[in-house]
Amino acid sequence: MKAVVFDEELKLLSDIEKPIPNKGEALIKVEIAGICNTDYEITKGYMGYKGILGHEFIGFVEDVNSEDKNLIGKRVAAEINDGCGECEWCKKQLERHCPNRKTLGIWKKDGCMAEYVTVPIKNLVEIPDSVSSQEAVFIEPLAAALEILEQLHIKPFEKVAVLGDGKLGLTTALALNASGLDVILIGKHQNKLDIVSSQGVKTLLLSNLRSELMFDVVVEATGSLSGFETSVSLVKPRGTLVLKSTIAASGEFNFAPIVINEITVLGSRCGQFLPALRFLEKKKINFNPLISGIFSIDNALEAFKFNKSKDSVKVLIKMEHQI
Amino acid sequence: MKAVVFDEELKLLSDIEKPIPNKGEALIKVEIAGICNTDYEITKGYMGYKGILGHEFIGFVEDVNSEDKNLIGKRVAAEINDGCGECEWCKKQLERHCPNRKTLGIWKKDGCMAEYVTVPIKNLVEIPDSVSSQEAVFIEPLAAALEILEQLHIKPFEKVAVLGDGKLGLTTALALNASGLDVILIGKHQNKLDIVSSQGVKTLLLSNLRSELMFDVVVEATGSLSGFETSVSLVKPRGTLVLKSTIAASGEFNFAPIVINEITVLGSRCGQFLPALRFLEKKKINFNPLISGIFSIDNALEAFKFNKSKDSVKVLIKMEHQI
Repeated sequence: MKAVVFDEELKLLSDIEKPIPNKGEALIKVEIAGICNTDYEITKGYMGYKGILGHEFIGFVEDVNSEDKNLIGKRVAAEINDGCGECEWCKKQLERHCPNRKTLGIWKKDGCMAEYVTVPIKNLVEIPDSVSSQEAVFIEPLAAALEILEQLHIKPFEKVAVLGDGKLGLTTALALNASGLDVILIGKHQNKLDIVSSQGVKTLLLSNLRSELMFDVVVEATGSLSGFETSVSLVKPRGTLVLKSTIAASGEFNFAPIVINEITVLGSRCGQFLPALRFLEKKKINFNPLISGIFSIDNALEAFKFNKSKDSVKVLIKMEHQI
Repeated sequence: MKAVVFDEELKLLSDIEKPIPNKGEALIKVEIAGICNTDYEITKGYMGYKGILGHEFIGFVEDVNSEDKNLIGKRVAAEINDGCGECEWCKKQLERHCPNRKTLGIWKKDGCMAEYVTVPIKNLVEIPDSVSSQEAVFIEPLAAALEILEQLHIKPFEKVAVLGDGKLGLTTALALNASGLDVILIGKHQNKLDIVSSQGVKTLLLSNLRSELMFDVVVEATGSLSGFETSVSLVKPRGTLVLKSTIAASGEFNFAPIVINEITVLGSRCGQFLPALRFLEKKKINFNPLISGIFSIDNALEAFKFNKSKDSVKVLIKMEHQI
């Protein structure tokens, strides 16, 4: 089968063997996969991962290694962390923190940018007919955005800013806005800000930011050290800075404002799929304007290149199964 | 009067004019002052402060600019932040976050390493006879340590580590231990660890730290970037790292573990004096072993030098009033 593989460099290979599901796993015929910035980071060495990339997908269950065959034929997404099922984290529905977890396309488990992928049956979420695959493929990043609300109680009167207008920032701003919160997205690109302002999110060009503006909650979604420092400066004393992007930076960094203003910096990662699915079913967010391009898997390397261009937001990869 | 002043360099001056209390202020005849690492940081440029140093002291009220003269003659300490009294922060007893605050010996207000200092009457806390001045001078750092418990609910079954065995780390470990929590102090100096182990705090030499040890709450009290990174690695997923020291560092720093493990980093600063006074009155902590030296103000520059030596913990400066 065809697969997008990272192994020292990014490659499109066509002679990868179709995977065989282990006990408790399903074999998924992938329909569509999304490129996340984490995939791009992996190609720069993040996590030291080598293998098939991708953790955002929609596909059809082709087979299951289980007695219960009811899932065969269903259209599904899958949560990306596969924990041991036994430890304190797994027992609290926090498989994402299981010390022995595998993570789809990121850690110890081949990803979904391939014609087929295997995933644990327990991780599957069935997609209802009312949600298209192009909408549904946003379930993973939407779940990650809603994770903020699992971790943090944001009160209705509090002011929230999201810094960064890449796919992470746009998705987060849309998710928090759809949750009824008072959200402003701050970014550098008017065309990207326009995508969310048409859905009711307030927006502000970074160049128009006045230093006296302060927020109860700021979500850092730029992935840069300068973005982090701007975010710190936007948080009110005793407010919260949600750290969504995995910044690895060198340079001078001053922690004093965090201590002086007693800021809480909250690391935030993957979320649960069911709340995200509820948002998708209720059409609370229109993700279509975020899709900048849909590439065939045959053009996956171009898709990755386009993903890094200034004008792209979300880039999807479609498998071209011969039926 | 004599005063320890920072103005480009650290100086002991003897021709400073005795201050005159503004309306609502008291004039304090200082008995004893403590050197805090913040004072040392100021001599390296922290906050850009110039003026009389010092924010930890015990003294006697000599005069008040107020109708009510009852306080004259009392032995007192004083909270260090002087807010406007009008803003949302001041109204919540959080003058330390008032945007127009002055902070004793740190920001826009001359400090207490002098024969006399003026402070707002509302900031005064009377010291009962049962608490000696050498004990009472720890009220400010103890309040800062107890601030952690104002900000964070640490549950009785949770495991707490304090990293760093300087005065901040020792005081924090003693304060959390005296609050009934399960605390271990991790540091590099056996002689400093011994100070707190004799009061029931568990201790561990950093060189004996095993990588599998993890804690619900870690307090960073080293002030170094490497200490911060070690602290991050000691926090359980979804745990809290309390940032007590104002690290300003350059170098490579990777935020990914904070995001991946969804760690909360909580900046923590000054605290309220009354809970600290309660601890002092109840003799919950013996601070005497922390006192490494008591210097006359005439030898204040040597006191600062000794404060930086490896063997010192808390260094005090005594005024030598001619009665």
